[in-house]
Amino acid sequence: MTFVEKIVSAQQTNNSLLCVGLDTDSRKIPDALKDERDPVLAFNKAIIDATADLACSYKLNLAYYEANGSKGLDTALATLEHIPKHLFSIADVKRGDIGSTSDQYAIAYQQAMPFDCVTLSPYMGFDSVETFLKDQTKGAFFLGLTSNPGARDFQYLDLASGKKLYEHVTDTVSSWNTTSKNCGLVVGATKPSELEALRHRAPELPFLVPGVGAQGGSLADVMNANGKGIALINVSRGISYASTGSDFKEAARKAAMTIVEEMQSLM
Amino acid sequence: MTFVEKIVSAQQTNNSLLCVGLDTDSRKIPDALKDERDPVLAFNKAIIDATADLACSYKLNLAYYEANGSKGLDTALATLEHIPKHLFSIADVKRGDIGSTSDQYAIAYQQAMPFDCVTLSPYMGFDSVETFLKDQTKGAFFLGLTSNPGARDFQYLDLASGKKLYEHVTDTVSSWNTTSKNCGLVVGATKPSELEALRHRAPELPFLVPGVGAQGGSLADVMNANGKGIALINVSRGISYASTGSDFKEAARKAAMTIVEEMQSLM
Repeated sequence: MTFVEKIVSAQQTNNSLLCVGLDTDSRKIPDALKDERDPVLAFNKAIIDATADLACSYKLNLAYYEANGSKGLDTALATLEHIPKHLFSIADVKRGDIGSTSDQYAIAYQQAMPFDCVTLSPYMGFDSVETFLKDQTKGAFFLGLTSNPGARDFQYLDLASGKKLYEHVTDTVSSWNTTSKNCGLVVGATKPSELEALRHRAPELPFLVPGVGAQGGSLADVMNANGKGIALINVSRGISYASTGSDFKEAARKAAMTIVEEMQSLM
Repeated sequence: MTFVEKIVSAQQTNNSLLCVGLDTDSRKIPDALKDERDPVLAFNKAIIDATADLACSYKLNLAYYEANGSKGLDTALATLEHIPKHLFSIADVKRGDIGSTSDQYAIAYQQAMPFDCVTLSPYMGFDSVETFLKDQTKGAFFLGLTSNPGARDFQYLDLASGKKLYEHVTDTVSSWNTTSKNCGLVVGATKPSELEALRHRAPELPFLVPGVGAQGGSLADVMNANGKGIALINVSRGISYASTGSDFKEAARKAAMTIVEEMQSLM
């Protein structure tokens, strides 16, 4: 299956756009799991098991794993292996480097850890992303307009051409997408009016939308703005930390179910 | 010592601006080391031992280590531990993410792997880099103008303000530097006239200059353009792959010595 087919198939399985973010802080594991050999892995497996019939995708932000050194990468790989194969897996790494180095990142997150796709920072330009455009079955979501306050510092800059920088990035990613139709765009949920405009600007690009919940984005606003486009809507802390007690698994399931029911009512 | 003091002290030790890049591809290890328990580590130790009286700094591009999964991060940490403490260590990771995630990257590359500094992508803005501005003894080099062809795709964009994007990034990094004086800028060796202009624009910022050698940058051009500013000039493949045979260590030393002698004649 191609990148887009994989996303659509995963979304149809559970009639869901929900991507569950596994940004697991090893210092915030519920007490009940602290004696496990790998508490973060035990936590991730529990969250996956609790949501695998509700989510279409899981996203691991590698920063949380790198913070635990080599052991953290073992945890990330074992977590990836626990994600059901019919759902969609994302390595949220936001990498970007010169061509020869990008080749190494592709080995890391397409082969050593065989995720379905990665997130990338586009700012080093074409040769920094080219290696990720080769394989139609693997994809890349590029940072378009991010959900954080600092997005204002550069992404909104007015260019001499009349575009904003994030609009120019979006147009460039659309041009890269002609190679293998395996590009997507990260668009923050905290900016629904910009999301709506970007959806019209790049109707073919799947959007990865973080920022619902802890960061303040509204699910209804995102879904209305996105319309009929392909979108994965990510929720991390709102699900995995719905409870920090021994009922964390049930609370995660309940939180995911509430979100998916709202999604289905809005579809 | 502060970030800048650490760099200057390391440079005075060997009267050198040379940063040796340890971008070690596990598929390109000389045959003589292939039976070692960790061939990449054995290679890195040999390169460090061969150049520790010539270099002021070592830079590990983590992509090459992540490509080997968790084992690669063990290699990176053991390599870092082998770098003499009076020299300057750089984790070339080009990370950048929302604030809470950036905190995890700081744990990864300031604590789990205690490098002297990191490289960062600035495009997610202030909250994505803030955590790295807290500790005066640790620094961050931000992507300013990179050495690769793709730098043309975004970094040279003309802004409505009349600046190029990379000039605006440089001014922003200079403003961030007022917090802890621990910021630097990555400026590619392949663009000496822009480097000279950026040196005048940001006289206080240390520059990390990749791109001499395999990427085509000229040492003399870089040093003339940089003038009296603080700069670390990185050479990776030109030293570590000076020979791929059993004489790789002697060849690396000879290549480093040639570069440092040219540096000293230009100082």
